[in-house]
Amino acid sequence: MHAVDLIRKKRDGEPLTPEEIQFLVQGAATETIPEEQLSAWLMAALLRGLSLAEVDALTTAMKLSGEVFDPSPLGRFAVDKHSTGGVGDKTSFLIAPIAAAAGLVVPMISGRALGHTGGTLDKLESIPGYRTHLTLPEMMEVLALCSASIVGQTNRLVPADRVLYSLRDRTATVESPYLICASIMSKKLAAGLNGLVLDVKTGSGAFLRRKEDALFLAALMVETGERAGTSTAALLTNMNQPLGRFAGNWIEIRESLDLLAGKRHPLNEDLRELSLVLAGWMIFLGGAADSATAGRERAEQLLDSGRALEIFTKMVQAQGGDTAIFAEPERFHRPAIRKDFLADRSGYLARVDCTQVGWAVQRLGAGRERAGEPVAAHAGLEMHAKLGDKVGAGKPLCTLFADDPSRLAEPELLLRQALVIADRPAPIDPLIQEIITPENKKQYLEAAHHP
Amino acid sequence: MHAVDLIRKKRDGEPLTPEEIQFLVQGAATETIPEEQLSAWLMAALLRGLSLAEVDALTTAMKLSGEVFDPSPLGRFAVDKHSTGGVGDKTSFLIAPIAAAAGLVVPMISGRALGHTGGTLDKLESIPGYRTHLTLPEMMEVLALCSASIVGQTNRLVPADRVLYSLRDRTATVESPYLICASIMSKKLAAGLNGLVLDVKTGSGAFLRRKEDALFLAALMVETGERAGTSTAALLTNMNQPLGRFAGNWIEIRESLDLLAGKRHPLNEDLRELSLVLAGWMIFLGGAADSATAGRERAEQLLDSGRALEIFTKMVQAQGGDTAIFAEPERFHRPAIRKDFLADRSGYLARVDCTQVGWAVQRLGAGRERAGEPVAAHAGLEMHAKLGDKVGAGKPLCTLFADDPSRLAEPELLLRQALVIADRPAPIDPLIQEIITPENKKQYLEAAHHP
Repeated sequence: MHAVDLIRKKRDGEPLTPEEIQFLVQGAATETIPEEQLSAWLMAALLRGLSLAEVDALTTAMKLSGEVFDPSPLGRFAVDKHSTGGVGDKTSFLIAPIAAAAGLVVPMISGRALGHTGGTLDKLESIPGYRTHLTLPEMMEVLALCSASIVGQTNRLVPADRVLYSLRDRTATVESPYLICASIMSKKLAAGLNGLVLDVKTGSGAFLRRKEDALFLAALMVETGERAGTSTAALLTNMNQPLGRFAGNWIEIRESLDLLAGKRHPLNEDLRELSLVLAGWMIFLGGAADSATAGRERAEQLLDSGRALEIFTKMVQAQGGDTAIFAEPERFHRPAIRKDFLADRSGYLARVDCTQVGWAVQRLGAGRERAGEPVAAHAGLEMHAKLGDKVGAGKPLCTLFADDPSRLAEPELLLRQALVIADRPAPIDPLIQEIITPENKKQYLEAAHHP
Repeated sequence: MHAVDLIRKKRDGEPLTPEEIQFLVQGAATETIPEEQLSAWLMAALLRGLSLAEVDALTTAMKLSGEVFDPSPLGRFAVDKHSTGGVGDKTSFLIAPIAAAAGLVVPMISGRALGHTGGTLDKLESIPGYRTHLTLPEMMEVLALCSASIVGQTNRLVPADRVLYSLRDRTATVESPYLICASIMSKKLAAGLNGLVLDVKTGSGAFLRRKEDALFLAALMVETGERAGTSTAALLTNMNQPLGRFAGNWIEIRESLDLLAGKRHPLNEDLRELSLVLAGWMIFLGGAADSATAGRERAEQLLDSGRALEIFTKMVQAQGGDTAIFAEPERFHRPAIRKDFLADRSGYLARVDCTQVGWAVQRLGAGRERAGEPVAAHAGLEMHAKLGDKVGAGKPLCTLFADDPSRLAEPELLLRQALVIADRPAPIDPLIQEIITPENKKQYLEAAHHP
């Protein structure tokens, strides 16, 4: 088999066989196919599209390119949630312990801040001592102890994705729903999941802004999950403003601890509700409730009872984190600078360019410019209004946190453009816009042009 | 400027500016843009197409990526002919001296055997002593002496094409009319031509078999030549059978010498006619005749008068070749093996798969498998019939020449399939099918889908 023949085939719009795709993926993982050939194939795949069978084969070949995690010795349904990335999205810290409390195991392999979106690992690492780099046997121990473990990807997990993702980043081949699906699903399926709930963001803070693109990706991932034997559902959810009150690192853990401790706040009801719905789907897929609605009710009980907080605390301890700070989480928030960002007029918060808000958070120091850079644990943003809220001229719209006063100017400029106050409130999109399941996925797959 | 942004732009179907294209081409020539980025851009260019302005910019940037030849000190119209490659195509050896005899200068930078097609340089190197590797000042000396010089490409001429062509070969991005046009035209225009005649082959022996593809490429090259200020015309010509009687290396020089010496033969009237028409166009473009038809007449006079033979002989001598063998060229043809290939039935030669005939010639030893391999000077094929000719069962259809008897089996198999004898002659396509000029190019450009 020659790589050039496979590139030509895809270039001419023909689907590759599973064996041909495996040849390319193995060649990527072992670096035996040179990058110039892989990138030509990636560009042809982006422009010609992949068939559903090709996406399945690509996902499977990538998943099997390295070691895989096997949670079956635990004897319980293994389930995870994956989000396509947002601003202030901290549902994992609620969902993982809720699902664990419902009797499932949650081997959650998470990522870092990317572009304008935050990273679960960066947030957890703001807890002193928390280790995100566990070996698979170490993760197994944590799961045996508390049924949930949130860790980073090891180098040996899905090595093909590391090679291909880095290449896609350099060759403008990131934005393909087919390649995005294979990248996400290969990593999730390598955790040996029985069930998976996908939180596909749409709106001004999402990577895929157009609803039809997000729907197609969601349906593609549901299809691919099902083909791999993993029960999969996807929720298309609103990312038109930051989720909850806070966006940053420690402040997001702190907000999650509040909710885990039953401290509700009008500004983070969206976060609480989305977490419960997602956890409800996980519980339903795992057979611990008869419907997603019943799952949501069960999730709320487990949150309100304090059982989820217990598991979260135990998990953080098991991974080396210092939970003494959980007693008074607001006292641990120690940014060098706090500065209110004031509304320049009165009216209603009518529109938020949530991607720009995400960039403001990143520039405050909570995110990174380049892979490998450190992030500031206490930098970030507190929102004082949600879309539709009345705001007064000169009153704080949000508060900025940073380690260095020089970090404020650019975020202030970004926020001035991103937060739009108008005379009247604008219509507000629902939090959960669509639910894509194996039963209805077909209509979304057919709506898009694919081979 | 970042390569990834330019790849993204082309990926999304937007045209690049001349500055952006220059950035990519310079990056290729200086190897400062990595191959994985160049190949992603090449694939996007192949699948999205290039605008006419982009092809112009690409050609110019490639031309200027290295040193260029400047024939202007000679004070005469510099003209060349380029063929897209065929079997038995030896028109250069007639055309160059004819155009030179008409008062033009012909700085002809030629190529080697590629795939199933022969190479002008390989044929010339069958003449003992002939040097194809001249420096540009050496070519200038030869031109000053005899007005024609046929040489190979130096390493310093169009270095961007060497990098990009090698990459295209590995990444299945050869077959783009836009990229083919830029590759051919940048090399031709680097010779400082005032005029250029393109012989675009179509039919069973051509790289572009479909007539519409060949027409589009032809029009694209005429457009690009004109934009660069070089008077350009293209002839779409028939490559449904080998041109003339012989295909190989020395035997093609020998056949050319026969025609230069006025020795005509019914089996190579096509070669003679095509050479005169192409030379006629060169003479017309160069202002030495009022029309292409008048140019053809002038070309015939210069051929018949022996003036072209004189110049050819002088040029070979000037480039170190031993022209003593020109006295009895058939005696210099010394293959180790000669074997007749017999017709297995009687009838008419109705169809020739000319690409397969080209592969037979290559396997006999006249071509090469890989770049850099030597070729056999005396290997090749002599045809004893043209399309439409009556052939008798058991009579020789052609004669094979090789240095080694083991070289015969595969060519015989190829020829048995490639030469089709039928009860009735099939209709024969005209030798010259279309003429594409600046005046009529538009219709062919518009016939194809391009941005």
